[in-house]
Amino acid sequence: MLFTTDEEITQFGGKLLKLTHESLVTKTSMNVNVFFPPSTTSSSVPVLVYLSGLTCTPNNATEKSFWQYFASKYGFAVVFPDTSPRGANIEGENESYDFGTGAGFYVDATQEPWSHNYNMYSYVHGELQEKLAQQFNQLNFNNVSITGHSMGGYGALSGFFKNPGKYKSVSAFAPISNPSTCAWGEKCFGRYLGEDKSLWSSYDPTELIKSYTDCNQPDILIHQGAKDPFYWRDHQLQPENFVKAAEELGYKGKVLLNIVDGYDHSYFFISSFVEDHAKHHIKYLGLE
Amino acid sequence: MLFTTDEEITQFGGKLLKLTHESLVTKTSMNVNVFFPPSTTSSSVPVLVYLSGLTCTPNNATEKSFWQYFASKYGFAVVFPDTSPRGANIEGENESYDFGTGAGFYVDATQEPWSHNYNMYSYVHGELQEKLAQQFNQLNFNNVSITGHSMGGYGALSGFFKNPGKYKSVSAFAPISNPSTCAWGEKCFGRYLGEDKSLWSSYDPTELIKSYTDCNQPDILIHQGAKDPFYWRDHQLQPENFVKAAEELGYKGKVLLNIVDGYDHSYFFISSFVEDHAKHHIKYLGLE
Repeated sequence: MLFTTDEEITQFGGKLLKLTHESLVTKTSMNVNVFFPPSTTSSSVPVLVYLSGLTCTPNNATEKSFWQYFASKYGFAVVFPDTSPRGANIEGENESYDFGTGAGFYVDATQEPWSHNYNMYSYVHGELQEKLAQQFNQLNFNNVSITGHSMGGYGALSGFFKNPGKYKSVSAFAPISNPSTCAWGEKCFGRYLGEDKSLWSSYDPTELIKSYTDCNQPDILIHQGAKDPFYWRDHQLQPENFVKAAEELGYKGKVLLNIVDGYDHSYFFISSFVEDHAKHHIKYLGLE
Repeated sequence: MLFTTDEEITQFGGKLLKLTHESLVTKTSMNVNVFFPPSTTSSSVPVLVYLSGLTCTPNNATEKSFWQYFASKYGFAVVFPDTSPRGANIEGENESYDFGTGAGFYVDATQEPWSHNYNMYSYVHGELQEKLAQQFNQLNFNNVSITGHSMGGYGALSGFFKNPGKYKSVSAFAPISNPSTCAWGEKCFGRYLGEDKSLWSSYDPTELIKSYTDCNQPDILIHQGAKDPFYWRDHQLQPENFVKAAEELGYKGKVLLNIVDGYDHSYFFISSFVEDHAKHHIKYLGLE
């Protein structure tokens, strides 16, 4: 068995599994939660990967996002990965909320000492899915979409663009849309990836979307709370940069950015729009 | 202003207010969360009171129960009271999870030293609602229903029976159905109410329902997880006792007890059946 089941919880007619496994990519034990909708005797369940934001474990979104209600209703599984290796025991990994533990930033680090463990890009888009497909063969990772919040929204967009054809659709809640030009991104890219800005660009959704000439891409759904201080005050999120970049080539008119009045950056914001995002993804997952 | 707004959070198109006020009944500062559905310019919004279980603050259910999605959809407000006074500074109030702080048991204590502050019955069914109605006059406490989980499920049933005509409907998730005959109830009733068993009975849903001869009562909806260890292992919940008592008089056939396979005692259980309970209450709140 690749994964150990720490807890199996019945919810919304389906099953939530809290799993642990040894990752070859991060060289640590990793936690992941997976929700299986009812009737997973079906041999081919579409999958949505939800990437969480800074500081989160798999449990935050599992408890507060209410993805499971819609996953149960429409018939898809949800995978909630962790946001970093934990317990790598690298000096400095626990010093701040926005770097190191809980802040893997969905890159493969190239810089010492991070490059040994902090490889969340290969972990999330590669190893984790391959291993889940092996152990839970009802999960169809050939019919998979991706979404996420904040750092995880960036991770979803980044992973979508870097793996053409892999994900049927992508959406994001308050994504860090242009990490090369905000404080969170500069800190993580600088320390994980070093000073080579072309490497930063290779993960930056606003840079990546510029090169897409294919007009047959799925729409990208984004929600951003207007009262989110990381948006209006700190300019960490910058969805407008992403929309502007999208206008240049194949994605023209295909980024559906909703700036929603009154909403903040919390799970209260996420849970409010999960239904819209579920309806977005089921179109592309063949569940409509 | 009776209540101070500590936080105002936009969610599901409505507003969640985290409020604080000085209670005359508990003689402490009390926290309460209230969710207002969209369009509360309406001058008459039906209200659902949700009573939480042992150890909970108003935030647990606010974050994990998923009531707000359905409150927004159907157009009712939800009031999430706290489960006890906090900071009364009574010796022994913080010694165990199932007595004192977080465990007010929705009674008016008659025993020293608890009787000065631990009056959650009068607080929840009286003062809190009266004061909310004063400050938020769009909330219609003449059109109010009640529900709750575990200790709060007992509190909802108890409050419903003790206030004939006050609540349009009642439901409960894994309620402590016959507290006079389980360890949790014996501990709290004994210390808050003393040795007079007739006083215990006056709060015990299984005793209270026996005296109801009126056949025109609303149905009572109960869900109980079959894998809940407080149910099958510890016999703290005993919904069968309640159903049996209901068969004697006016409630015959009107307690809809659903023992649901696989479910535990957690918020994952609650959130899974909140939709059913919402649909139950809106029938009686005139929102169907």
